[in-house]
Amino acid sequence: MANKVVTFGEIMMRLTPPNYLRIVQAESFDVTYGGGEANVAVSLANYGEEAYFVTKVPDNPVGQAAVNHLRRYGVRTDYVVRGGERLGIYFNEIGASQRPSLVVYDRKYSAISGAKPEEFDWERILIGARWFHFTGITPALGDNLAQACLDAVKTAKKLGVTVSCDLNYRKKLWSPEKAREVMTALMEYVDVAIGNEEDAEKVFGIKAASSDVTKGVLNEEGYREVASQLLEKFSLKGVAITLRESFSAFDNGWSGLYYDGKEFYKSRRYEIHIVDRVGGGDAFAGGLIYALVNGYSPQDAVEFAAAASCLKHSIVGDFNHVTLSEVKNLMKGDASGRVQR
Amino acid sequence: MANKVVTFGEIMMRLTPPNYLRIVQAESFDVTYGGGEANVAVSLANYGEEAYFVTKVPDNPVGQAAVNHLRRYGVRTDYVVRGGERLGIYFNEIGASQRPSLVVYDRKYSAISGAKPEEFDWERILIGARWFHFTGITPALGDNLAQACLDAVKTAKKLGVTVSCDLNYRKKLWSPEKAREVMTALMEYVDVAIGNEEDAEKVFGIKAASSDVTKGVLNEEGYREVASQLLEKFSLKGVAITLRESFSAFDNGWSGLYYDGKEFYKSRRYEIHIVDRVGGGDAFAGGLIYALVNGYSPQDAVEFAAAASCLKHSIVGDFNHVTLSEVKNLMKGDASGRVQR
Amino acid sequence: MANKVVTFGEIMMRLTPPNYLRIVQAESFDVTYGGGEANVAVSLANYGEEAYFVTKVPDNPVGQAAVNHLRRYGVRTDYVVRGGERLGIYFNEIGASQRPSLVVYDRKYSAISGAKPEEFDWERILIGARWFHFTGITPALGDNLAQACLDAVKTAKKLGVTVSCDLNYRKKLWSPEKAREVMTALMEYVDVAIGNEEDAEKVFGIKAASSDVTKGVLNEEGYREVASQLLEKFSLKGVAITLRESFSAFDNGWSGLYYDGKEFYKSRRYEIHIVDRVGGGDAFAGGLIYALVNGYSPQDAVEFAAAASCLKHSIVGDFNHVTLSEVKNLMKGDASGRVQR
Amino acid sequence: MANKVVTFGEIMMRLTPPNYLRIVQAESFDVTYGGGEANVAVSLANYGEEAYFVTKVPDNPVGQAAVNHLRRYGVRTDYVVRGGERLGIYFNEIGASQRPSLVVYDRKYSAISGAKPEEFDWERILIGARWFHFTGITPALGDNLAQACLDAVKTAKKLGVTVSCDLNYRKKLWSPEKAREVMTALMEYVDVAIGNEEDAEKVFGIKAASSDVTKGVLNEEGYREVASQLLEKFSLKGVAITLRESFSAFDNGWSGLYYDGKEFYKSRRYEIHIVDRVGGGDAFAGGLIYALVNGYSPQDAVEFAAAASCLKHSIVGDFNHVTLSEVKNLMKGDASGRVQR
Amino acid sequence: MANKVVTFGEIMMRLTPPNYLRIVQAESFDVTYGGGEANVAVSLANYGEEAYFVTKVPDNPVGQAAVNHLRRYGVRTDYVVRGGERLGIYFNEIGASQRPSLVVYDRKYSAISGAKPEEFDWERILIGARWFHFTGITPALGDNLAQACLDAVKTAKKLGVTVSCDLNYRKKLWSPEKAREVMTALMEYVDVAIGNEEDAEKVFGIKAASSDVTKGVLNEEGYREVASQLLEKFSLKGVAITLRESFSAFDNGWSGLYYDGKEFYKSRRYEIHIVDRVGGGDAFAGGLIYALVNGYSPQDAVEFAAAASCLKHSIVGDFNHVTLSEVKNLMKGDASGRVQR
Amino acid sequence: MANKVVTFGEIMMRLTPPNYLRIVQAESFDVTYGGGEANVAVSLANYGEEAYFVTKVPDNPVGQAAVNHLRRYGVRTDYVVRGGERLGIYFNEIGASQRPSLVVYDRKYSAISGAKPEEFDWERILIGARWFHFTGITPALGDNLAQACLDAVKTAKKLGVTVSCDLNYRKKLWSPEKAREVMTALMEYVDVAIGNEEDAEKVFGIKAASSDVTKGVLNEEGYREVASQLLEKFSLKGVAITLRESFSAFDNGWSGLYYDGKEFYKSRRYEIHIVDRVGGGDAFAGGLIYALVNGYSPQDAVEFAAAASCLKHSIVGDFNHVTLSEVKNLMKGDASGRVQR
Repeated sequence: MANKVVTFGEIMMRLTPPNYLRIVQAESFDVTYGGGEANVAVSLANYGEEAYFVTKVPDNPVGQAAVNHLRRYGVRTDYVVRGGERLGIYFNEIGASQRPSLVVYDRKYSAISGAKPEEFDWERILIGARWFHFTGITPALGDNLAQACLDAVKTAKKLGVTVSCDLNYRKKLWSPEKAREVMTALMEYVDVAIGNEEDAEKVFGIKAASSDVTKGVLNEEGYREVASQLLEKFSLKGVAITLRESFSAFDNGWSGLYYDGKEFYKSRRYEIHIVDRVGGGDAFAGGLIYALVNGYSPQDAVEFAAAASCLKHSIVGDFNHVTLSEVKNLMKGDASGRVQR
Repeated sequence: MANKVVTFGEIMMRLTPPNYLRIVQAESFDVTYGGGEANVAVSLANYGEEAYFVTKVPDNPVGQAAVNHLRRYGVRTDYVVRGGERLGIYFNEIGASQRPSLVVYDRKYSAISGAKPEEFDWERILIGARWFHFTGITPALGDNLAQACLDAVKTAKKLGVTVSCDLNYRKKLWSPEKAREVMTALMEYVDVAIGNEEDAEKVFGIKAASSDVTKGVLNEEGYREVASQLLEKFSLKGVAITLRESFSAFDNGWSGLYYDGKEFYKSRRYEIHIVDRVGGGDAFAGGLIYALVNGYSPQDAVEFAAAASCLKHSIVGDFNHVTLSEVKNLMKGDASGRVQR
Repeated sequence: MANKVVTFGEIMMRLTPPNYLRIVQAESFDVTYGGGEANVAVSLANYGEEAYFVTKVPDNPVGQAAVNHLRRYGVRTDYVVRGGERLGIYFNEIGASQRPSLVVYDRKYSAISGAKPEEFDWERILIGARWFHFTGITPALGDNLAQACLDAVKTAKKLGVTVSCDLNYRKKLWSPEKAREVMTALMEYVDVAIGNEEDAEKVFGIKAASSDVTKGVLNEEGYREVASQLLEKFSLKGVAITLRESFSAFDNGWSGLYYDGKEFYKSRRYEIHIVDRVGGGDAFAGGLIYALVNGYSPQDAVEFAAAASCLKHSIVGDFNHVTLSEVKNLMKGDASGRVQR
Repeated sequence: MANKVVTFGEIMMRLTPPNYLRIVQAESFDVTYGGGEANVAVSLANYGEEAYFVTKVPDNPVGQAAVNHLRRYGVRTDYVVRGGERLGIYFNEIGASQRPSLVVYDRKYSAISGAKPEEFDWERILIGARWFHFTGITPALGDNLAQACLDAVKTAKKLGVTVSCDLNYRKKLWSPEKAREVMTALMEYVDVAIGNEEDAEKVFGIKAASSDVTKGVLNEEGYREVASQLLEKFSLKGVAITLRESFSAFDNGWSGLYYDGKEFYKSRRYEIHIVDRVGGGDAFAGGLIYALVNGYSPQDAVEFAAAASCLKHSIVGDFNHVTLSEVKNLMKGDASGRVQR
Repeated sequence: MANKVVTFGEIMMRLTPPNYLRIVQAESFDVTYGGGEANVAVSLANYGEEAYFVTKVPDNPVGQAAVNHLRRYGVRTDYVVRGGERLGIYFNEIGASQRPSLVVYDRKYSAISGAKPEEFDWERILIGARWFHFTGITPALGDNLAQACLDAVKTAKKLGVTVSCDLNYRKKLWSPEKAREVMTALMEYVDVAIGNEEDAEKVFGIKAASSDVTKGVLNEEGYREVASQLLEKFSLKGVAITLRESFSAFDNGWSGLYYDGKEFYKSRRYEIHIVDRVGGGDAFAGGLIYALVNGYSPQDAVEFAAAASCLKHSIVGDFNHVTLSEVKNLMKGDASGRVQR
Repeated sequence: MANKVVTFGEIMMRLTPPNYLRIVQAESFDVTYGGGEANVAVSLANYGEEAYFVTKVPDNPVGQAAVNHLRRYGVRTDYVVRGGERLGIYFNEIGASQRPSLVVYDRKYSAISGAKPEEFDWERILIGARWFHFTGITPALGDNLAQACLDAVKTAKKLGVTVSCDLNYRKKLWSPEKAREVMTALMEYVDVAIGNEEDAEKVFGIKAASSDVTKGVLNEEGYREVASQLLEKFSLKGVAITLRESFSAFDNGWSGLYYDGKEFYKSRRYEIHIVDRVGGGDAFAGGLIYALVNGYSPQDAVEFAAAASCLKHSIVGDFNHVTLSEVKNLMKGDASGRVQR
């Protein structure tokens, strides 16, 4: 039986120059669609869950294309609101070797960022759901969206729906101060928090001692502190942290950590040669939610999430087009990449 | 000796699904850049004039790509201002047979639409210029742009620069009432006006009797009336009208009319099988300006403009990539399309 | 309120060489998915109906891709069965001028052609439905499929679901004799029949006098006879006939005829410059069903169907990606192809 | 039993901007290979003959690619000489509507143009052959090639091999005077001459009265005179003339005329909507040779040649990728372009 | 002087999503053609041998395209039989990092798999040949093909043609038991066997102790045992084994081993960053056959084979498009990848 | 204030098979334009300098396309001469793993190689310039070009313009003896020389002891000797040497050395995973010139040059499309490739 899972946020058009070209060289863009919470919904649909994505898109072919892209990969779009000005866009140059990937956002004035809280009927949306997920990007889109998130999580609590939040701090959307204020209010209703090396520090001032993300140095001990501080501060049931070691735009180390208030569970570490790293964190969140909603043990959950998101780095676009069996196969240890005939 | 010609307006990114695909089918977009006045500048640069395009683009790779596209085709970008929020975008489905081309605008909040009049130093920009051209789209972008246009045409007058204006009414940008008010003020400084079958009516209420653009029926006599009313109303030196007969998205009739206050000059009529019709009117304006600034007779001027814009319909993108000799060759009558070896 | 409409048949992968290349020249194929009944389902989903497509696809990424393609365009795939050997494929060269389009079928041994009648639970599938549609292709896939069709139409009758059948004779799938035998049994349960110039003759020996499809000559009187014979023979409520005049691979005349047992209703005739004609008949069927299920008058129904299918010829792929308003706009008479800004 | 047919000339790399782009817009080129005599060889291989193409290509991957392209389509390349400086290149913009196709040649210093007559062992090459074909382009490449042609046709005569020559005058390669001198010497050994509206006049001063190729006006009577003058002047067995009416880059009329010294045989006339017209004349020559070497009647021969070359205009690239049965089908009269399922 | 070498098997159409896309994401497929024995034939043609490929393809454009692809790269297709149902197809996702390449076979009911033994006239095919090669895939296609293989190898023996067999076990085609039975009968006529880490075990139960292919661990000592057991069991002249170490879909170790009954010859080991690994083993077989038929020493033969197949991993498609001099250059030790100007 | 910098040499069309295909596989080529000195000009334009490129191109669309490509990226083309026979072309296969990149030159008879020294008015070209740069390729194109270079450097000296020369020895253009003779005469006017591991040895017989470029072994001590010998021999102000370690076509080590006659300055060493290495040396030269003309310290200059050229290896095409801030960011040490949002 599939579980109803609901995610809420923005889906953008992503325009990517093909073949490692830069924007100034491009004569065409590959077009996909994505966004933190939409990416999570696709992961869950891929694993067989009944995943709903809630957003607002303009009532034109561009908005329809975004909805179609979600439907194509099995996400339910019944609660998508139509109207507003435009679909957010982001341009994404794929980095290579020492040249970093580059994102140029053109997301302002998007339909979802202008949506009113009352456009979302959370009682109807969340009825029967097992899980609700959002990221720190959604409330950062404006006070109206922060309110919509608050409405959502309160309704979720009321209906007994588990709530997860990926902190996902975006400095171009809001200041740390604003983020802290808004997120603190929302965290009260969150059960499981997910973050990476920068989020906890930027949003809540919780810092992993002596890591330097630009040097690819990770301090695992520090992350444990961060996780436990987060969990305590907001009385969470669990905290997951993704640990990315950035060696170059092509080569990253990748693993995950999960803390359930009692023990720390560390996943296997992957050395990844990257095809497309956007959505890596969302693939982790999607994997974690799948595992937790299906009763995996904490260790299995963080392994599933890490394997799923490791595979995402080999997939073009924001969405993680992998099957349950592919994730499980990697989770069990076959990272040899041998041909599957 | 090349003549300095200045045009002022917006340049947008144009995203076009390849191979007659619709937006909802597209997995990639061909990307070009264009806009009414930018298209005119490219025409003039192609014919050997020193064409400057004045605008404002965001200070990011997307804005730079637009500038590069202009530079590639010889347009001078020395007076382009950097800053603002975003580059305007438009999505353009190429129509086919009975299915019309479709334009989805996403141009709001563009850098140029947010520019302040004082960001353009018209004295410096227009010094030494022979011609200044703008279209009704630019003042439609906002009161600030209407003011900038007014500054420009006043300076032009002061410096003895000839001014042309393509009425180019866009119903999504402003109401007929607003257009009439703003355009009337600007027309005082205009020497040559250009319009098509809808513009004069929508903007100034001057209507060609008994034409129905959706039926491909043209009433030439009516156009003559429109031209002479326009010329008189604004004491113009000349009025040019493009006559498009729309039989289908693939097949159009095309010709032009020029009135110099004394006589009507009608160009040859072309039956066109269309590759890309966007920018057809701009190619006409570019051809007309080239001809007038180079002292062509009225008949030759309208023939040159019509031939140039006929060829535009065979060119992909907004810009009219044709050479002086190609236009002249068609103008002289060789429309056989025989291979040039 | 959307109407539940169910269609049943095969969906194939379509491999098309790009840019008018022939198969022997192709180094890549554009891949879309289609099939007579699937195409009808997409049309109905586009117009806002709750369209279900019933089929069987292999349980592998190729089968999943076909399902995803349907979902993308809003078709419900809840009743799609998984299993069997392979997805049917067809190679499709787009014709040009005097060179006809070429179809190479590789559809044998497909999952649906090997499906057992009992794999489809028609009571469950048709509950609440307003309409059931199939074409002559489905029963031609094998006796098992003929049985499945019979099960379906019988259940439809029982549940009060209107049944339509597009005769769609395919000579590579069965002989006229076999077709007549099987189709005659099925027609007993059909309410509305749809056919083209060859179908009635090949399947039931009902011939329009003195038409020669290879010469582009149509004999409208003859078609009226065919329609009335068909209607009487099988006590139908309505018969629709598509009238294609083939002048070249690029240029066709196109119109439709509808007979309700009392009067003949003829649609406007379109002169089409073709982009992709596959699925033209299915677009007509989809349009007709939409119109009839929504209570259009017979004249409006045949106009809607003809306009919808006219537009299909401008769309790449089997599916008719047009909106309700686009069909209505053409139906009302604007075939000028003018840009929609 | 296949007939051995030998053709001799240059094969060039053809670089074509995709999708009607102009050279200055192109960021990629489609690459094919072609040349007058190579195109004829491909036609003959397609129809099942044992076609050899004789040339010289550089001993590098670019030369190898040209050879591979011939092999791919069944042409025997056993007698191709390796060495020399470079492969000739031509850039080819596909025209549209009133914009003509444009060819930029970059063929100078090619391997074949620098080949020495003694590099071709005609006794060995022509042994067992039924037919030898060349065009006026080959001797125009230089005195060395003119000599090689003379060696070839003399050997052909000695061995009883029928010789055909397509006059194919190219003004960028030589002057009319030079052409007349060289071609006159070669024509002594020619059995069948092929030409178009310009060739006979430019090369031999034989003019069809009152035709004007830039106006699409054809004077059939004049062509009959040209054919009979040519036949008499050089004691030919037959003369074929292609009649192209150029209405636009998209639309041409096309037919052929054959004169056997007794009667004039005129083919059906085709109205063609062009995909790619390069190689149209070569497809006519290839069809004519096939028909004559297989004993077709003169009327059938010119019909076969005209149908074959009509189809070429629908094929991308220089080569005529059509089968014997496709040509025969069109020759019999089915130009309806109906889908072949 | 080129040696006549004959290979026998299936050639399939290979459909590959571009740019690391997965099948469910693909809107186009790159199309190439390949198959174990066809790939070997292309290698040999590239090195200058007279390579014939024997198979059966359907008599349609798809079958012709496969033949053309072989001809393009110099393989002789004189003995290819036409007829049967369809060309086998396989879909091939290119893997990346921890995501393995994925092959979806759609090869059942192919023309070759349905061919009758008597369709191949081995006396005529093998006359004058120096070498005959097949793989374990061909007899796995059905008893008819196993018989055809037996006919071939018996004829080869009779005519003094050396026979090689690449064991190439495919679990989707037959069971180990069936494979053992059929292959044992065929091995009686084989001179040189080639295998990889799985083949000997799966087919003949000969296992290299303590290797685990999913862990990238190779046990060289074990392979020596396997080679010597194989050689003795079937009285072979030589046994070659390819040693692939799978670290990820991008990174493999690669080397080869050859045993001539007296000594073991181990090639240099290559660390490969993979572009396309399909056909790597076939490139090894092609290199080995070339070396042995040209009298290379065992050490040189295994080095040539290993270098050739190392390069294959950098080539897109099944075929190994490398020249003799490129293989020799790498074999001599220049693996620096420096630009060749 | 931008500095006027002038470079002089050839710009070629570069034709690259897409996606790692080899030339014999390619059905299309990506087209870019480049050449040693043009590449340097683009680097300088990117960093904000007023960069002029001087050359001669044919007066046709192919020549125009090369000019447009330069203009697009901000290079001034005011002094480009039009005329001559053709634009030089080079075919460039991108290497992979052990397969080296392959360049096939087709540059003979280019417009620039046939230019006369007097076609370049160096007094006019160099007036107001700060720097003049050329490479050893330009004088290698012929005695006329060697003379033009001599004219240029003499004029530069006279006008106080700093001169740099990248030795860039090309064995296909001239012999070491000829190179030494010509370059020795030119070096008299050079201020800064740039070279790689082969240049100094090939041109001046100055060899770094015990390096073997095919083994990726670098002898830093040897390079210091080379640099100091070069500086002394030609009384240079500075000598820069690029140190490439070739591990494979994908993986290189990269660093630079600068000697100012007093001290040696070594840059950071980069381990690069290569996208496109053509133009790497030119990007170093462009970076060095920028740094020196802007008064960077020697250490900063070599770091800037090394960082700029490191980034070039991640950019498609000859040109180094990176911004000043991107180079500075890498120069400061962030090589983590983290996404820039």
